[in-house]
Amino acid sequence: MEPQSRPLDTLNNARHKRVIVDLKNGKQITGELEAFDIHINLVLEDAELRSEGQTEKKMGKLFLRGDTIISIAISE
Amino acid sequence: MEPQSRPLDTLNNARHKRVIVDLKNGKQITGELEAFDIHINLVLEDAELRSEGQTEKKMGKLFLRGDTIISIAISE
Amino acid sequence: MEPQSRPLDTLNNARHKRVIVDLKNGKQITGELEAFDIHINLVLEDAELRSEGQTEKKMGKLFLRGDTIISIAISE
Amino acid sequence: MEPQSRPLDTLNNARHKRVIVDLKNGKQITGELEAFDIHINLVLEDAELRSEGQTEKKMGKLFLRGDTIISIAISE
Amino acid sequence: MEPQSRPLDTLNNARHKRVIVDLKNGKQITGELEAFDIHINLVLEDAELRSEGQTEKKMGKLFLRGDTIISIAISE
Amino acid sequence: MEPQSRPLDTLNNARHKRVIVDLKNGKQITGELEAFDIHINLVLEDAELRSEGQTEKKMGKLFLRGDTIISIAISE
Amino acid sequence: MEPQSRPLDTLNNARHKRVIVDLKNGKQITGELEAFDIHINLVLEDAELRSEGQTEKKMGKLFLRGDTIISIAISE
Repeated sequence: MEPQSRPLDTLNNARHKRVIVDLKNGKQITGELEAFDIHINLVLEDAELRSEGQTEKKMGKLFLRGDTIISIAISE
Repeated sequence: MEPQSRPLDTLNNARHKRVIVDLKNGKQITGELEAFDIHINLVLEDAELRSEGQTEKKMGKLFLRGDTIISIAISE
Repeated sequence: MEPQSRPLDTLNNARHKRVIVDLKNGKQITGELEAFDIHINLVLEDAELRSEGQTEKKMGKLFLRGDTIISIAISE
Repeated sequence: MEPQSRPLDTLNNARHKRVIVDLKNGKQITGELEAFDIHINLVLEDAELRSEGQTEKKMGKLFLRGDTIISIAISE
Repeated sequence: MEPQSRPLDTLNNARHKRVIVDLKNGKQITGELEAFDIHINLVLEDAELRSEGQTEKKMGKLFLRGDTIISIAISE
Repeated sequence: MEPQSRPLDTLNNARHKRVIVDLKNGKQITGELEAFDIHINLVLEDAELRSEGQTEKKMGKLFLRGDTIISIAISE
Repeated sequence: MEPQSRPLDTLNNARHKRVIVDLKNGKQITGELEAFDIHINLVLEDAELRSEGQTEKKMGKLFLRGDTIISIAISE
């Protein structure tokens, strides 16, 4: 059995990977996870606003405030 | 009478078990509980968005921010 | 006159008793109080979602995040 | 001029008195104030849900989470 | 130029004066400021719920939880 | 290049100047900034509720709770 | 591989650059980032309220409270 991991370990392992972030306002943002902190503030590279699986807007480097985030899906 | 337990003990005992998470936005997510912290941030493996008992979307490894969570039902 | 009690004392005395929890989303959950903490995170055993006095869904062991709770009515 | 009082002093003087609590969800609860803490979590005895001056439901001993409370009117 | 004041100094100078409190739920309460704390929890004496400049309900001594307050207008 | 400033420095430099405050409830308040603290609680002198560029109500000395504020525009 | 960065490093590198800030109320503000703090309170110079890619209002020097912010897009 592996040692018990914490949620921030999971985010740390996701650095430089593509993530899909669902926000409380119903929007979805994808991008490469560059940085995060304990408040779950994120920085994404090549961020895109997505709608029904299509890119709606390219947003470049994007700071996301943690308290607007519902979930972060991590590619593996 | 058993020693008094705390809510985080219950989450700790649920590691690697299937849980059903109800979110404040009315969505329901199921998955295997991999990690949690004191803010109730969760990491689920094989997460699925559920709707009326049916899988609506497979989401893989999913970080859930604690303040979006209403309840976590634990299989036994 | 009895010594002045604090709200968490009341929850402590309610352990293993049946409680009725009203949530901010308008739902009502009943169950046996197994655990709580200072954030009013709760764990209920044999939790049930109730609607108009009827059981709508059995939820088993349930972790409830404290900030979703309005009130906890305690049977005596 | 009396010494400067703090809001929690007022709640302390209201112990064992009847209070009327207005909640953020628009509901009104009355009861005898048994306990409170710095988060304004309350415990009421003989709590009643009120609607237009009429008792709508008797709730017995009731824990109210502080962050759901707008105001507490105190009988004198 | 007077020494730089802080917002709580202003509340302190308003003790025993009439204030008009606007709440996040759109309601307006007037009363004499008896007590406050750093959370902006207030106690008002002779509190009245106001609507369009008219007294709608007399509420006596009233504890107001700070996080429900938008603004406090101070008579001079 | 000037030394790096912090947001509260900007508020400090705005003391005794006219500011326009946008609130989360959609209202706009103008006044002279008299005091602020780290929670962005403000005290305005000669505060006015504004609507479409017109004064709607004179509010005199006004305490504004920081968590109701979206933005503070500063005249220079 | 570069050393691991944190979100506030990204904001620090964005000083004196143009940013696009999306707010929780659905509004969009652009301006030059002059200052920020750990709460993500911002000060923008030459701030403008934007709507559908057009300038709707010029706001000059603008303090933005951090908890109203969803995201900050950074030009490079």
